[in-house]
Amino acid sequence: MRLALLGGTGDIGEGLALRWARDTDHEVLIGSRDPEKAREAADAYLETLADHDADGTIKGFANEMAADRADVAVLAVPPYHVGDTVDAVAGKLDADTILVTPAVGMKGDEDGLHYHPPGTGSVTALVAERAPEAVPVVGAFHNLAAGKLATLQADLGVDTLVVGDDPDAKATVSRLAEEIEGLRALDAGPIANATEVESVTPLVINIARYNDEMHDVGVRFD
Amino acid sequence: MRLALLGGTGDIGEGLALRWARDTDHEVLIGSRDPEKAREAADAYLETLADHDADGTIKGFANEMAADRADVAVLAVPPYHVGDTVDAVAGKLDADTILVTPAVGMKGDEDGLHYHPPGTGSVTALVAERAPEAVPVVGAFHNLAAGKLATLQADLGVDTLVVGDDPDAKATVSRLAEEIEGLRALDAGPIANATEVESVTPLVINIARYNDEMHDVGVRFD
Repeated sequence: MRLALLGGTGDIGEGLALRWARDTDHEVLIGSRDPEKAREAADAYLETLADHDADGTIKGFANEMAADRADVAVLAVPPYHVGDTVDAVAGKLDADTILVTPAVGMKGDEDGLHYHPPGTGSVTALVAERAPEAVPVVGAFHNLAAGKLATLQADLGVDTLVVGDDPDAKATVSRLAEEIEGLRALDAGPIANATEVESVTPLVINIARYNDEMHDVGVRFD
Repeated sequence: MRLALLGGTGDIGEGLALRWARDTDHEVLIGSRDPEKAREAADAYLETLADHDADGTIKGFANEMAADRADVAVLAVPPYHVGDTVDAVAGKLDADTILVTPAVGMKGDEDGLHYHPPGTGSVTALVAERAPEAVPVVGAFHNLAAGKLATLQADLGVDTLVVGDDPDAKATVSRLAEEIEGLRALDAGPIANATEVESVTPLVINIARYNDEMHDVGVRFD
């Protein structure tokens, strides 16, 4: 499969690119608004893989081109760029491209980070509203510590929660998640349940802040 | 210490009563609006302990009396009774009684359970607003599966998140939590961070619903 990371020059994009390239045979496409930046990131990720005696296929493209080629496109952009990025690639998406959203709206104050969803109730619901109707939308990879994900020697041992209204698309994304070593995918139901999934992200960041010796906090459900 | 479970005839109250009685030397006080019901529950819990070759001290009282005697009082009541219960026992509380709130406001629909906090932003904030000003309020024990907690042969192996604005009260409640075998307490910051803690409760229930062979789902952060 071809897996596009739109905005894949950022931290969550880097981690997913490195892990998918190392742990699977899928082709990883880094997307950026600037294709030159995407190509530079792809080259840097390949070097990181080589440093870990690993390899894989990673190429850089403009976001639109990456989306056009992709079977699965991950919106690896900050929450305030999610809507614009969907609009920018909408013409390249169809029923055969699964759109995946890991972004979470948050606001910080002196106490910590707080969940701050858009008016639609969740970023996942926003993506479902903005994407062309035929495109299956799945929420996943929200609660992964980006730093740990991009540190290839780190064992993950964490869960990711998957939400979506299209069972086949959800199954595909869950499978792709579990092809990453140490990552388990759990079903959290339809997009209507995305709010409770997304709000774990500020929580894990608050836990890392308030507990000594906890960094890059992930979550497991048992 | 004397630990009161106000509304301790319900499921979360039963689990905490059984575990604290078995795992610690603290005196457990079951509170109920009806003291006769509280005494019956206390007797039943002692029988359950005996069935597991364990013992402990558990006594039943009216909520007001339990609160009056307690060093720590847990509001083990449904979220819509939290305010009333605080009002009922307010005259018995002072700076030496820690008030602990595990309740979470939720609403269900066909998709699952959704977090539904009161206007204060969280049940924990509601309790802090309604309790006499000197009384330290701590949020904890939100995300424990009540059925598993009350099943003494079940290994917990889960975390509970603790929020509060009074560091000493928070430390006491964290210590009490960790005296329960298999339970780890993590600091999630001040009461302002309770929203993200409470909203994990509908999430773990949704995960139990959507994943085969997952029941009584708890959470661990690593």
